[in-house]
Amino acid sequence: QGCDEPSDEGVNVFGFIQPKYQYNENAANDDTNTFDFNRARIGVMGKIPYDISYYVVLEASPDNQRHDGDAYLLDAFVTYSRYDFARISMGSFKSPISLELNTPCHKLHTINRSRVVEQLATPDRDRGFMVLGGSDTTLFQYSVAVTNGNGLFDKDDNKKKDYAARVVVNPHKNFKIGASYKYGESASATAGMPDDERTRWGADLQYKTGAFMLQAEYLYGKDVGSYTTGGGCGEELTLHQGSVKRDGGFIMAMYKFKNNLQPVFKCEFFDSDKDMGNNTEFCTTYGLNYFLNDWTKIQANYVYRAERADEIDNDIFMLQVTVKF
Amino acid sequence: QGCDEPSDEGVNVFGFIQPKYQYNENAANDDTNTFDFNRARIGVMGKIPYDISYYVVLEASPDNQRHDGDAYLLDAFVTYSRYDFARISMGSFKSPISLELNTPCHKLHTINRSRVVEQLATPDRDRGFMVLGGSDTTLFQYSVAVTNGNGLFDKDDNKKKDYAARVVVNPHKNFKIGASYKYGESASATAGMPDDERTRWGADLQYKTGAFMLQAEYLYGKDVGSYTTGGGCGEELTLHQGSVKRDGGFIMAMYKFKNNLQPVFKCEFFDSDKDMGNNTEFCTTYGLNYFLNDWTKIQANYVYRAERADEIDNDIFMLQVTVKF
Amino acid sequence: QGCDEPSDEGVNVFGFIQPKYQYNENAANDDTNTFDFNRARIGVMGKIPYDISYYVVLEASPDNQRHDGDAYLLDAFVTYSRYDFARISMGSFKSPISLELNTPCHKLHTINRSRVVEQLATPDRDRGFMVLGGSDTTLFQYSVAVTNGNGLFDKDDNKKKDYAARVVVNPHKNFKIGASYKYGESASATAGMPDDERTRWGADLQYKTGAFMLQAEYLYGKDVGSYTTGGGCGEELTLHQGSVKRDGGFIMAMYKFKNNLQPVFKCEFFDSDKDMGNNTEFCTTYGLNYFLNDWTKIQANYVYRAERADEIDNDIFMLQVTVKF
Repeated sequence: QGCDEPSDEGVNVFGFIQPKYQYNENAANDDTNTFDFNRARIGVMGKIPYDISYYVVLEASPDNQRHDGDAYLLDAFVTYSRYDFARISMGSFKSPISLELNTPCHKLHTINRSRVVEQLATPDRDRGFMVLGGSDTTLFQYSVAVTNGNGLFDKDDNKKKDYAARVVVNPHKNFKIGASYKYGESASATAGMPDDERTRWGADLQYKTGAFMLQAEYLYGKDVGSYTTGGGCGEELTLHQGSVKRDGGFIMAMYKFKNNLQPVFKCEFFDSDKDMGNNTEFCTTYGLNYFLNDWTKIQANYVYRAERADEIDNDIFMLQVTVKF
Repeated sequence: QGCDEPSDEGVNVFGFIQPKYQYNENAANDDTNTFDFNRARIGVMGKIPYDISYYVVLEASPDNQRHDGDAYLLDAFVTYSRYDFARISMGSFKSPISLELNTPCHKLHTINRSRVVEQLATPDRDRGFMVLGGSDTTLFQYSVAVTNGNGLFDKDDNKKKDYAARVVVNPHKNFKIGASYKYGESASATAGMPDDERTRWGADLQYKTGAFMLQAEYLYGKDVGSYTTGGGCGEELTLHQGSVKRDGGFIMAMYKFKNNLQPVFKCEFFDSDKDMGNNTEFCTTYGLNYFLNDWTKIQANYVYRAERADEIDNDIFMLQVTVKF
Repeated sequence: QGCDEPSDEGVNVFGFIQPKYQYNENAANDDTNTFDFNRARIGVMGKIPYDISYYVVLEASPDNQRHDGDAYLLDAFVTYSRYDFARISMGSFKSPISLELNTPCHKLHTINRSRVVEQLATPDRDRGFMVLGGSDTTLFQYSVAVTNGNGLFDKDDNKKKDYAARVVVNPHKNFKIGASYKYGESASATAGMPDDERTRWGADLQYKTGAFMLQAEYLYGKDVGSYTTGGGCGEELTLHQGSVKRDGGFIMAMYKFKNNLQPVFKCEFFDSDKDMGNNTEFCTTYGLNYFLNDWTKIQANYVYRAERADEIDNDIFMLQVTVKF
């Protein structure tokens, strides 16, 4: 019946849940409010002597649209780490582009990621292998991934792989600069045409001194033949025909007081078609984080969405508890 | 890659499975019998210093109809318990109404809950926050919940929340009296009409002396505009238009012998429309529980279903093993 | 809220993942290649004093077709093991037929099971109870199962159960001979007809000396009324009307060198209809396993598929990492 003993080193069970309250302002006083889950994850990780480690995590948030709320495998990879400057992972993992995408979900400074990251750093997870080196404390950190290019659930639809790379330089203890690049091709959305192409590049920086932190990021995306929208946390991707150039970015500042309160201020923009005028969206988030302890925080975010033409009622208030275990 | 160390206090993995054999008597000698699962749950819980605890559990029974047998998140909440008389939970949890609904599924005295509880104490889980105080050993115990009112998977469909409360008084060590109340509104099932209303109230008592225990419960439900049927363990809810008043109850007695055998006898009734005559269903369960040890029990239930007008063949025999880990 | 303490003995969390790279040769140079998951499993098992044990495991591979990549309950059973010659399990488990089916998935010598096992030893899991006795080191080992006969997700569709049995004799420390038999009936695929019948029998042997191992297996299946195709790992079963006789087998040899490299050679055949001529498929697998440590192995398989009539391009190359925890 295949009942083997677990490995000597033991398995660490971990995860986090993010129950949330959200209030949406809508036109004509038709506001809505709901309790939901942002994320709910359970997983295991561990080390196997020598040089092997594994990381497996399920997403179980009932609000994930992709799977009607069912649990599914998110990240799952095995890593060979004999050489610290060239660790190799195989399985499913986050794409190595963007500063904010690669910030763990339970450590995000605002409740949601920026719209530009949700729209352009997709698919947020992919399957393949990755080579990575360095760490938060080294001068230089890199990751290079070769993946299917079409996310967690589909097999590759063409002969070519997608390539992504990210480099972070740490020239001073307070300061980090990152650059990301991704190129991929996928089967054409129009029959008989050559493969569609996706290109992404981005730059980001982080400045930290004492209790203060500043982050800024810019992402640019060029799609030829077809492009996707959607794809935020657990959100379904929608495929569109046609070519488009898009970009966006954010700047975010926060300060952590000694009483464990951390105000956050974030400005972002997203241009959903650079060849079109007047369609850039602006968004400002006023946040307040409270750290109950190392594993529990409460986040309140007020998101003000500004429209170019005329102001409409679409602001959002969110209150989220994150407990990590 | 978001690989953090688990928290110091450790994560407790727990759960239980309930493989079952069921024999259904049907008309015309067309009886059926099957092996299935009543419930199959895996979860984690733990404490985080100070005053925070979490509880996360997946339902994985392949016989759940809601999700075609896929695993999904059931209870998931974080609790702040600094003040024992006012602990606060946020996430998804059982509605604080009914004695039998709030008996843990692996501790039920009969294999199934009563029909009135399955029909009127729905949705059995809901999302929101709860304030609760007291424990099994205190004179007074209460819980008050503010929830979406539409279960585990849907966001709230109207502006108003649902409210539920339950109080248990423990005037003597052998004796407990409980009272429950719930009121909620939901978007009207008929377009353009005001919100539909649901009201529930119930009363229950428990008497325990030595190896003997008696439980009794009454539940009343009034639905205006629309009502649901179904909703037992993992069962899909069905929405009906119209208003209805329903009630039901049960009385159950059991005695645990020194050889770990526990006979159980339960009588229940359910009136699916109080404005209609002759539609009350009666049901008698003859049960025998055997406790192999503190975590394992075997339950045999014979359920005799009596019909007002003429007797039909629809009795059920069930044999279930519960193993808790 | 039903938060009990876990049992004294503790719960062991275990599982394994199998990220894979696959290259498919196709006609007209239209080859494809993809990263995917063969299996991804997480579960718990443990012992409860006295004589009770449990085993619960979820399949979470995003490539399972049965559930669109959602996680679901695979094996889940409770075992009473007071008598070592007659241990009793209840729940869902592997059918006790075939040597290769009963080789644990993370211990398979080739990446895929043989085609005859995938086609005839279905459903690979079933629900019911099993009596088993003996172990790998005893002269005699047996298992007898009474099950629904229709797999993990459906309740039994007729009044009769399916019966399966497997016996393994171990006459010499190097040598094992096995025999399997299964008989079941299911509701007729054609309305108004008597129940359809399925019969399976098989024989297998294993010879092991030092680093060398040889395995061979033969399986025969006779279906009256209807039959299924498909049903490999996580694959959907397809039901066909009509009767069919099928058989197949494999012979496999391997040698484990001191440097942890293990070449494997496997020949198999499968006749999808014994009353038809010229339809036997032949398949040769050239494999190389490398054991990084006791819990991690890398497998490379080249599968050459030979066609009777004329050779077509349909060979497969696979590279799979298995990490067990």
